[in-house]
Amino acid sequence: MLLDTKMINKSANNILIGAEIFIEPGQTPAEIDNWFRILKEQGMYLTRIRMFENYMRNEEGEWDFTLFDYAFKAGEKYGINIYGNLFPSTSFDDVGGFKFPRNNKHLELIAEYIEKTVTHFKQYSSLYGWVPINEPGSGEIPIDEFSIKKFEEWKIEYNLSEEQKFEGFNHFKFEEERFLVSYNIWFLNWLVEQIHVWDPDSNIHVNNHQLFLLAAEYDFKAWRSFLTSLGGSAHASWHFGYFERNKYALAMSANSEMLRSGAGEIPWLMTELQGGNNTYSGFNAMCPTNKEIVQWLWITIATESKGSVFWCLNPRNSGLEAGEWGLVDYQDNASDRLTEVGNIAKFVNENQELFAEAKVLESGISILYTRESLWIEKKQQTGGKFYEGRNIGGVMKSAIAYFEAFSEMGLQINFKELSEFNFEQEDFKGKTIVLAHQISIPSTYYFGLESFVRKGGKLIVDGLTAYYDENAICTFRNFPLKNLFGGSVKEFKVIDDLFDFDFIEPNFKVPAHLWRGSISAETGQPIASHSNEITAIKNVYGAGEVFWAPSLIGLGSRIKGNYHKLYKLLYQEAAESINSLLFRFAEPYEGLLMKTMKSKYSYLTIIINKSQNQKYIELLIPENMSSQIIYPEARELSSNTILIDDEETLVILWQLNVA
Amino acid sequence: MLLDTKMINKSANNILIGAEIFIEPGQTPAEIDNWFRILKEQGMYLTRIRMFENYMRNEEGEWDFTLFDYAFKAGEKYGINIYGNLFPSTSFDDVGGFKFPRNNKHLELIAEYIEKTVTHFKQYSSLYGWVPINEPGSGEIPIDEFSIKKFEEWKIEYNLSEEQKFEGFNHFKFEEERFLVSYNIWFLNWLVEQIHVWDPDSNIHVNNHQLFLLAAEYDFKAWRSFLTSLGGSAHASWHFGYFERNKYALAMSANSEMLRSGAGEIPWLMTELQGGNNTYSGFNAMCPTNKEIVQWLWITIATESKGSVFWCLNPRNSGLEAGEWGLVDYQDNASDRLTEVGNIAKFVNENQELFAEAKVLESGISILYTRESLWIEKKQQTGGKFYEGRNIGGVMKSAIAYFEAFSEMGLQINFKELSEFNFEQEDFKGKTIVLAHQISIPSTYYFGLESFVRKGGKLIVDGLTAYYDENAICTFRNFPLKNLFGGSVKEFKVIDDLFDFDFIEPNFKVPAHLWRGSISAETGQPIASHSNEITAIKNVYGAGEVFWAPSLIGLGSRIKGNYHKLYKLLYQEAAESINSLLFRFAEPYEGLLMKTMKSKYSYLTIIINKSQNQKYIELLIPENMSSQIIYPEARELSSNTILIDDEETLVILWQLNVA
Amino acid sequence: MLLDTKMINKSANNILIGAEIFIEPGQTPAEIDNWFRILKEQGMYLTRIRMFENYMRNEEGEWDFTLFDYAFKAGEKYGINIYGNLFPSTSFDDVGGFKFPRNNKHLELIAEYIEKTVTHFKQYSSLYGWVPINEPGSGEIPIDEFSIKKFEEWKIEYNLSEEQKFEGFNHFKFEEERFLVSYNIWFLNWLVEQIHVWDPDSNIHVNNHQLFLLAAEYDFKAWRSFLTSLGGSAHASWHFGYFERNKYALAMSANSEMLRSGAGEIPWLMTELQGGNNTYSGFNAMCPTNKEIVQWLWITIATESKGSVFWCLNPRNSGLEAGEWGLVDYQDNASDRLTEVGNIAKFVNENQELFAEAKVLESGISILYTRESLWIEKKQQTGGKFYEGRNIGGVMKSAIAYFEAFSEMGLQINFKELSEFNFEQEDFKGKTIVLAHQISIPSTYYFGLESFVRKGGKLIVDGLTAYYDENAICTFRNFPLKNLFGGSVKEFKVIDDLFDFDFIEPNFKVPAHLWRGSISAETGQPIASHSNEITAIKNVYGAGEVFWAPSLIGLGSRIKGNYHKLYKLLYQEAAESINSLLFRFAEPYEGLLMKTMKSKYSYLTIIINKSQNQKYIELLIPENMSSQIIYPEARELSSNTILIDDEETLVILWQLNVA
Repeated sequence: MLLDTKMINKSANNILIGAEIFIEPGQTPAEIDNWFRILKEQGMYLTRIRMFENYMRNEEGEWDFTLFDYAFKAGEKYGINIYGNLFPSTSFDDVGGFKFPRNNKHLELIAEYIEKTVTHFKQYSSLYGWVPINEPGSGEIPIDEFSIKKFEEWKIEYNLSEEQKFEGFNHFKFEEERFLVSYNIWFLNWLVEQIHVWDPDSNIHVNNHQLFLLAAEYDFKAWRSFLTSLGGSAHASWHFGYFERNKYALAMSANSEMLRSGAGEIPWLMTELQGGNNTYSGFNAMCPTNKEIVQWLWITIATESKGSVFWCLNPRNSGLEAGEWGLVDYQDNASDRLTEVGNIAKFVNENQELFAEAKVLESGISILYTRESLWIEKKQQTGGKFYEGRNIGGVMKSAIAYFEAFSEMGLQINFKELSEFNFEQEDFKGKTIVLAHQISIPSTYYFGLESFVRKGGKLIVDGLTAYYDENAICTFRNFPLKNLFGGSVKEFKVIDDLFDFDFIEPNFKVPAHLWRGSISAETGQPIASHSNEITAIKNVYGAGEVFWAPSLIGLGSRIKGNYHKLYKLLYQEAAESINSLLFRFAEPYEGLLMKTMKSKYSYLTIIINKSQNQKYIELLIPENMSSQIIYPEARELSSNTILIDDEETLVILWQLNVA
Repeated sequence: MLLDTKMINKSANNILIGAEIFIEPGQTPAEIDNWFRILKEQGMYLTRIRMFENYMRNEEGEWDFTLFDYAFKAGEKYGINIYGNLFPSTSFDDVGGFKFPRNNKHLELIAEYIEKTVTHFKQYSSLYGWVPINEPGSGEIPIDEFSIKKFEEWKIEYNLSEEQKFEGFNHFKFEEERFLVSYNIWFLNWLVEQIHVWDPDSNIHVNNHQLFLLAAEYDFKAWRSFLTSLGGSAHASWHFGYFERNKYALAMSANSEMLRSGAGEIPWLMTELQGGNNTYSGFNAMCPTNKEIVQWLWITIATESKGSVFWCLNPRNSGLEAGEWGLVDYQDNASDRLTEVGNIAKFVNENQELFAEAKVLESGISILYTRESLWIEKKQQTGGKFYEGRNIGGVMKSAIAYFEAFSEMGLQINFKELSEFNFEQEDFKGKTIVLAHQISIPSTYYFGLESFVRKGGKLIVDGLTAYYDENAICTFRNFPLKNLFGGSVKEFKVIDDLFDFDFIEPNFKVPAHLWRGSISAETGQPIASHSNEITAIKNVYGAGEVFWAPSLIGLGSRIKGNYHKLYKLLYQEAAESINSLLFRFAEPYEGLLMKTMKSKYSYLTIIINKSQNQKYIELLIPENMSSQIIYPEARELSSNTILIDDEETLVILWQLNVA
Repeated sequence: MLLDTKMINKSANNILIGAEIFIEPGQTPAEIDNWFRILKEQGMYLTRIRMFENYMRNEEGEWDFTLFDYAFKAGEKYGINIYGNLFPSTSFDDVGGFKFPRNNKHLELIAEYIEKTVTHFKQYSSLYGWVPINEPGSGEIPIDEFSIKKFEEWKIEYNLSEEQKFEGFNHFKFEEERFLVSYNIWFLNWLVEQIHVWDPDSNIHVNNHQLFLLAAEYDFKAWRSFLTSLGGSAHASWHFGYFERNKYALAMSANSEMLRSGAGEIPWLMTELQGGNNTYSGFNAMCPTNKEIVQWLWITIATESKGSVFWCLNPRNSGLEAGEWGLVDYQDNASDRLTEVGNIAKFVNENQELFAEAKVLESGISILYTRESLWIEKKQQTGGKFYEGRNIGGVMKSAIAYFEAFSEMGLQINFKELSEFNFEQEDFKGKTIVLAHQISIPSTYYFGLESFVRKGGKLIVDGLTAYYDENAICTFRNFPLKNLFGGSVKEFKVIDDLFDFDFIEPNFKVPAHLWRGSISAETGQPIASHSNEITAIKNVYGAGEVFWAPSLIGLGSRIKGNYHKLYKLLYQEAAESINSLLFRFAEPYEGLLMKTMKSKYSYLTIIINKSQNQKYIELLIPENMSSQIIYPEARELSSNTILIDDEETLVILWQLNVA
């Protein structure tokens, strides 16, 4: 029985699954109506529409909203919620839209467009909220009048506030990078203000994109103040370049965790998910299979997403992306991808109560990346021979390596920017932080990290973590984390693309990449060595402990394509976090992943098999649980060992047996 | 006995084989005289001279034609015909010459140069005609004053003529591309007009270059009105980048067919053919062997070329290309390449009557490419992972794939731009058109294609043919060729670099590349399928039939380096054309090619073996024919089975036995 | 016993080994003092300091030398000699410093900086001399006001002096290239003049860098007039891109020979040698092993270097290169690299008399490269398929190939720019010159080369040597070296990346690369052939002989990674030089090298093993010699067969037994 769509709309706790309807001149009202009908038929009560200014004004500059009125009326007719994605006038081949205004006149034109558009469409009950800009984030400061002026103003203010005395080490200032973060905040906020002038209190949603590359440009904590919900675009073909295709599910999981962390207490949605085929667009051309679509959708749900919107229901007919990306075929029939999305949408609609209060079952393990590491990695590029660890991507891929290894152990893992971690808690017993080749730790976080360990936390550190402070000053001559880490680095040495990293006790080797660091140990106890040099130590600090191996053992394992040794290390080093977990794999399974959510009296786990083989999976679960598979079809589970097909996604519901 | 050179000159039907004599200051009159002597000695009665303005004016700007007078006088002395290739002043390292004027002043200077040069040299009886520009075609609009102004003017006119109403799909306008075509026409015509002011009715010849890449910039049909003959530059090292070296003969054949088609009713000549070695110039450095030279020359002849001019007889001594490209060695001795060219030239001179009325023996099979496909392919590039089919080149290489397969079946194949095909005929019985991954079919040709099939033609369609119309609007939502093709595309999906494409009846697999299209069949009958999806159909339409496989099976076979399955398909689908052919291979021979010409009572076939092995070739020929090999040396043929050496070129004369 | 440091300072004949101390704000006086102490402790009495103007002026523009005063005082305290490396104000991320002034104002500012800096620091007895600029040479003319104006002035003057008549072959003028050479001379000289205004007669030293790539920009002969000593930067990770890591010792040897030749009668020092690890800087990231450091140091000493300065003692803390390149670790402990440098420094200090008068034991063999060959190779690049021989690097790598082969035969080899060779001698008996693919021989050297052979020299010529004159005019149509070489080239032909080159008598094959030249022999006697073409000749000319194989047999051997056939050829062709040598290997040893110096009554040889195996080496030495290994530790040598470990460097002292 289909739920009343109204109920779905109004509760912020409900999950909404949908797809963008691409509106462009040339379409007929009947076509537009039909797409909304299709969404309803599939139980997909959410869409997003790109509100092209170009298509709302005629040649004389007069406003004509007719085309988009068809859509909003169809939304009302079928009970579909619409995110209006503002899209001020831009050139026809600007596929993603501009990110910043060009000059003051342009800013005024944008404001006028917002006024006209918002005041017109707020009349519709189908209007769900506004997306003030598509995919903010440009990678660099545009060289136009407005941005240059803003940057100059910002620099004056910034440099007044910064101490600029003739003392201490001279250093890079990362003005472009810091400004870009602040400029994005400013422009998003300005857009929201314009919207709220005409439609106060309306929902505001923003989808950032290319997160693995552009993360350092986004300050999600600052965005929370003006957003109703955070969103993301996670298109496999555009954004998962750090992954092979059989790792796209993991990529989706990491991307989702980054968004969940960014969103904090506000909800988040995966605003764009690839729905169909690439012809000429997309860096790594593909057509998602329906199984991949299922994996992606369940991963976002299991990461607390309150919805997903595919890009797109209907392919646009013209320009770049013409005929691409659609969930329906050229005859508007449902593809097998859409059918599967519809199945999940309907399942979710009928079981909203299962998800309403469900939260991620916290593993207590957080992989942290730092904005400054990404800035510095980019700044330091000098070309030459390619090594994954020293080219752009080394920092992020190192963090991803640990995420992948933990995921294959069946654990949910937090993936956070350093600033998103709450260092203010009283007790970190059972908590683990991984800093994998985070080459810059801003000095303002030294105390937080110390505090984390002092209060019982476990810190796992690899690579060139903390090599630089936030100004790219090398720290090791007078290492500020010496007390915490239990020593300092003596030297790093380029070794090879891959080399063996030897642990002493227990004796085993982990593949490592590029550099080997040697340690001048003080309080730390040696746990790995090479030719009379200490290469890793453990240091007890307060109630906690630091594991420190200043070599790229995470990325080394990833490059080798084999996490077996890293699993072992992590079981050992993150034992306190892992052992207290109620749900996990009995042993690591290559190519598998599991995520678990917790409601008041029940747990939901999703398990995905990307191993290319059918697999028997043994789960460690709490005692006294009744269990049933609820997706793809309902059936009881008779044991903790589960058979899962290649590419299959299973959703299991666990309920406490009340004795 | 050498023919009177006058006779060779005057008859438009005679074939002239020659070589460019490169004239530059520093050469002596004796050297220049000697090069003309060499040409005569080799029976090569045609040359082309680059008429450098830079070398005709002294430092004070006074005209001094002395250097070039030596050449024209030597031309008269030895009876050599000279094409004067206009070459207005440009920088010393501008190896090919500018393609468009820079400003009005520049245009005036060009006009003045033409006046001076033409009026001076028209006195010589050795003057054969004028080449108004070397290798027109620049790939893009130059960013200089004149071109920008022309473009602005053109846009105003174009947009007035185009309907620009606020209805229908917004779309790319391809203004740069359309302008460039028109701009080339305008400038060529302007140059011809300047020449004809001073030398009315003189012969005009133009050589386009880099045809596989620049074809979309040339509108040969429009050129015909002001040209006496069309020409081309086909340098293996510069222009055959889509081919491996052992396919250069095929490349020459395709290039020649493109020119023959472009020339239409006017004659054509291969104006530049690589004569010698590359030192630093040329993308794929090489020195042609004398056997390659022979292959290229016979291929152009067998494609109705009325002559060939090698670049060049004598290597220039200075600048880029210094010491490169020559047919003579540094001592002015004939290379083995020149000797072979001379042999053919003499043979042709003595047998002009054989070739005078010889026309290509029409196979009735035409591979069509479309200008708009090339434009759109280029426009849609977004970078990312390389796939031959979606990067620049996919469109042209797909067409080439079929050309290669048919060639190895021993067939002459037309290779035409869509506009060059005559859709106005009454009957297309026995005719075949191949549209291989021609992603754009302009809407103005829908009727022509329908008409072709309705009147009995066979249409073979692969890849993403017709995905776009001429404005890059995706067609499949409302497929205008549905009636013709017998259905529409449902979806395309990226599969893999290579995958198997399964035909049902007869059951066999063809390698395919990148995308698999599924079909929503209407009148068409399924002939291939994958997982319950129809992947190819046949549709009877009027008196003809369409074969449609919307996957890249041509390019797939080419990438795999194996046409065995495609041969089979083509024998089946192009049977009506093939079976009516009087001359062809009994079976396909990898690495072989055959071209056939027909005169009143005789046929000429050339057969080239690039298989890297000696081969026995069985020919299917009409009965009642007497045959003899006439090149490389005369001998009778006793059977239809011919032994041919690796790299050998055989020319066979067939004559009807009059009983 | 440590020598008095004064003694070390004052004698120009003493060898000084040291390391750059990098001074930057943020360092403490104690740290600075300690680095000087470390140098003294290691016996390293030379340092070089980058005299940042940025760190000598406060925000108000007032001069404040405090930071650098600490260093110069510490220099006095520990007896360390300091090269002051001028470094006028530039942006923080300009890692190497600007190479030319931007405008007249900038020139004035530089002059002011020099005045202030030189007048201040000349007070210190620790001041050893001035380095007026870091690593001159920019690869191209900067596009700023000053350089453009200078270039315009230069062109006027140059073109007045050059004959520019309307006769002879038009040609490239290489104005940019010639100007750049002259511009470097001008600016260096200007800087020296500024220094000498305030500190007359002070030592001046300049370190050029990236010599294999930038050699054509340096005119060392012209520099000698204003330099006290020549220097070089030879960083494996930045500058040895033409070599694999196991050839870096050879690269250092070639680089050193180029500097020795450039320096002529003035001393030279290796001013920058890589001391430590690369993190993000360096094209081919590495950390030198202490064994590599030893090899490099002994190679420079054996090539008459009067010192070496490592970059750097202490890693800088900020900016690009932060934490990289250091000889001390982050705790200022000596790395194993520094310890080894110290060992050698102390050894040298104690044995200065051994080296004071030691000169390279001349082999009489010179490999010559020409500036014009490098210019033309760069100018002629047209892209396309990569071949080592025709891309940038072909010229230099061809010369290097012979250097590598001779080195593995245990010979010292001169590596000179053509202009650095003295063609004015009376007798060249026993001398050998190699011209390997030196594509341009300036016409002014034709007589010198003829004279060299006429007077008994042996000339070995390969590749496209002399293809062009200095203006890139191809020479072979009227070959000016015909009498000398004994013939001319008929043709070059591209063959393949590698092909066999066949010698007739004795019959053997050498691998060759890319082109095969055929020869029109006159006086020369054929020694190699292919298909009836002569491919190499020998020509007796006066008292000498020319060996000429116009194919790339040197580079071919290098690409193949196998010099066995080339050894054989060189033993045969350079026999007169080789057989008269007092010290060499009994046979070639792959991966080994030997260099020998001669003092009045003794010889020093260094032998380095890069073969990756322990090796027994048999030496050919004069009779009646007593010998002992003096490094790494002293021991007698009992025979001419020496055991050497992989990566080991042995230094042997040979003394004449006075009977």
